[in-house]
Amino acid sequence: MKTIELRSPYLIFLGSETELTYAKTGAGLVEWRRELCKGQLALEGGTVDLGLPAMSVAEAAAGGIGSLVIGTAVVGGNIPDEWLDVLVEAVEAGLDIVAGVHTKLCDIPRLAEAAAKSGARLVDVRVPPARLPVGNGKKRTGKRLLTVGTDCAVGKKYTALALERDMREMGMNADFRASGQTGIMIAGQGIPIDSVVSDFVSGAAELLSPDNTADHWDLVEGQGGIFHPGFSAVTMGLLVGSQPDAFVVCHEAGRTHISGWPDFPLPTIEDVIYRTIAIGVLTNPAISCVGVSVNTSRLKPEDRAPYLAELSARLNLPCVDPLKGGTKPIIERLNAAMDDRSAKAKRFLA
Amino acid sequence: MKTIELRSPYLIFLGSETELTYAKTGAGLVEWRRELCKGQLALEGGTVDLGLPAMSVAEAAAGGIGSLVIGTAVVGGNIPDEWLDVLVEAVEAGLDIVAGVHTKLCDIPRLAEAAAKSGARLVDVRVPPARLPVGNGKKRTGKRLLTVGTDCAVGKKYTALALERDMREMGMNADFRASGQTGIMIAGQGIPIDSVVSDFVSGAAELLSPDNTADHWDLVEGQGGIFHPGFSAVTMGLLVGSQPDAFVVCHEAGRTHISGWPDFPLPTIEDVIYRTIAIGVLTNPAISCVGVSVNTSRLKPEDRAPYLAELSARLNLPCVDPLKGGTKPIIERLNAAMDDRSAKAKRFLA
Repeated sequence: MKTIELRSPYLIFLGSETELTYAKTGAGLVEWRRELCKGQLALEGGTVDLGLPAMSVAEAAAGGIGSLVIGTAVVGGNIPDEWLDVLVEAVEAGLDIVAGVHTKLCDIPRLAEAAAKSGARLVDVRVPPARLPVGNGKKRTGKRLLTVGTDCAVGKKYTALALERDMREMGMNADFRASGQTGIMIAGQGIPIDSVVSDFVSGAAELLSPDNTADHWDLVEGQGGIFHPGFSAVTMGLLVGSQPDAFVVCHEAGRTHISGWPDFPLPTIEDVIYRTIAIGVLTNPAISCVGVSVNTSRLKPEDRAPYLAELSARLNLPCVDPLKGGTKPIIERLNAAMDDRSAKAKRFLA
Repeated sequence: MKTIELRSPYLIFLGSETELTYAKTGAGLVEWRRELCKGQLALEGGTVDLGLPAMSVAEAAAGGIGSLVIGTAVVGGNIPDEWLDVLVEAVEAGLDIVAGVHTKLCDIPRLAEAAAKSGARLVDVRVPPARLPVGNGKKRTGKRLLTVGTDCAVGKKYTALALERDMREMGMNADFRASGQTGIMIAGQGIPIDSVVSDFVSGAAELLSPDNTADHWDLVEGQGGIFHPGFSAVTMGLLVGSQPDAFVVCHEAGRTHISGWPDFPLPTIEDVIYRTIAIGVLTNPAISCVGVSVNTSRLKPEDRAPYLAELSARLNLPCVDPLKGGTKPIIERLNAAMDDRSAKAKRFLA
C-alpha cells in the first residue's frame, strides 16, 4: 500500500477558532469517524466545540493518541505562529501532526527539528506519496463504486461516506476510499488525486482501490467533473484508474453553471451518465449508473420530494438526497444490478 | 508567458556517444531548427556527427552561444561524471545548460555552484514552470490545431513539426507548440504537460497557445492517447486547454494494441475522432478533424500508397505519411474547412 496512512486515534486541534464553519475538517472527522476522535484541544479564545472531551497534549500522549489532526482552516491556509508551541509539544511527545493546510509542515523549522528528534511524522495530506506508478489498467478483484458529479462541490465525498455508512448498516462489506484531503483525514488513508502529476493519476487511482474479496465494495470519492473546463483531467484519470462497476452521479439542485466558470452551463445528469460510461468501459465494460445523489438544500422543503420523484421518473434511477433520507434506494438498485449481472453471467455460462 | 524559454543559439553536446540512435534529441534539433544549431561538442571517444561545426566551450562563449543543449540520452538518464568538467566550464562561461535527463541539473553540486556564481541557468525541460493556473476555458484569439493519436509514440510531435514546416512554406503564419521535453528543446519553449500536476493540466495547456492574431495557427504537440489506460488524463487536459479548431489523428500502420499494454486493443481512428470531438466541443464547439498522419514504416514500400488511399476513402479525410510526402493535403483540407466555416458564419450574419 502506497497511499498516505494516518496513525489513529486522533486529538482534534481547533486553534483559537470561534466559528464552526472553519472547523469543517474536524467536524467531518467527528461525524464520520467518531470512534477514532478521542479528544479536542483549543487554544485560548477558541470556542468551537465538537463535543469531544477536552484533552491536553500530555493527556493525549499518556492516552495513546496517534496523531494531532489540525481540524480547522485559517483564512490563507497557513499555520499561525500562535499554534507552534502546542504543535511542537505534541511532536516532542511523539504525536504525528496531520494537516491539509497550504504551508507545508516540514517547511516550518521548529516542527521539522522536533520531528527529526522524536521520530513523529509531519503528514501533509495535500502531498501525494512519492514514486506513484503509471496506470496498468489490469482488472482487480473486488468491486468498486465511484461518485462522479455534474460539477465540483456537489457532494461526491459526502455521498461516498453515506454509502459506506448505509452499506455497513445493511451488513455489506464496504470501505470509503479517499481521493481528497478532507476525505483522507476521515478515512485515515488515501491519495490527494488532484495533486498527482498527470502521468500518474490513473496509477494513483489504481492504488486507491486495490485487490479485495469478491463481496467487497470500495466506495471511491470522486473529484472534479468530466465536463469541467479546469479539472476534467483529474476526473478522467480517476475514472480510468478506479475501473468502477457502478457509479452515482452527484448534483446540486438549482445549480445552472459550473461554479466559478460562469461561461460554462452545467452538463445535464444524462450527459454525465453517458460520458462516464463511454469513458469507463475502457477499464470496466460492465460499468453502470445506479443512482443520483442530490443536494436539495437550495430548494424549498416542500419542493424536495417532488423534485427527486420527477428526476427519478425521468432517469429511471433512484434519486435521493443523502442528507435527508440516506442512500438505501441506491444500494438496493446496486445490489439488484449486481444480481442481474451474475444471473446473466450464469445463463451465459450454462 | 510562463512556459519554459530557452536561450538560443545552441551548442549541441554529444558526450562520448557513438550511436546516432542515442543522440535523437540533438538530431531532432538539427532537423527542425538547423538555423539555431551553431556547433557540436563531443568528448574523447565520441563519434556521433550531426554535421555541425565542432566547437569548444571557449569558442561558443566568444561566438555568442546562449545554451549548451545536452543532445544525447545516456541509458538510465543521468549525467555521467565525465561530462562535468565541460558542463561546469560552459556554465562558468555564462552558457545556460539545457537537459531533459532524469537527474536534475540543480541537484549536481558542482553545476549548481557554478550557476549561482555566473548567473547561467540550469534548465530541466522535464520540470514544468511553477505556479501554473487552473484552466479558465475562455476562448482565445488565433487558431489552434492539436495532434492526437491512437496511442503514444505514433508521430504526434513529428506531425506538428511537419505541419509547421509545410504551412510556413505555403506562406501561412504558424508555430509549433511543444508539450514534451524533446519538443521543448526544438521549439525553444513549452511546458512538459505530462509532468504537470493534474489540477493544472488544462491551465498549462492554455498557456501553451496564448492569444494570437486571427490568421495565426498554433500547432500543438499532442500527448498520450484519449483511450490510453495510463495517460488519458494528460490527453484530456491538453485537449480541453488547447481548445483546438482542428485536429489531426496520428497512427502507426500495423499497430494492434496500446504499446506496453497488451490487454488493450488499439482504438480505431474513428473512435479517436469521435471521442476527441465529443470532448473538444466543451471549449471549442467548432472543432473538426482535418486529416490523419500515419507512420507507414512497418508496411512494405509497395503497400503504403494503397493503405493511405483506402484509409482516405474510408474516412473521407486526407491521410498522409508525413515522412514520405509531407502534410500539404491536410493543410489544404484545413484551409478549405476554415473557408467553409467563415462562409457559413457570413451567411448566418447576412
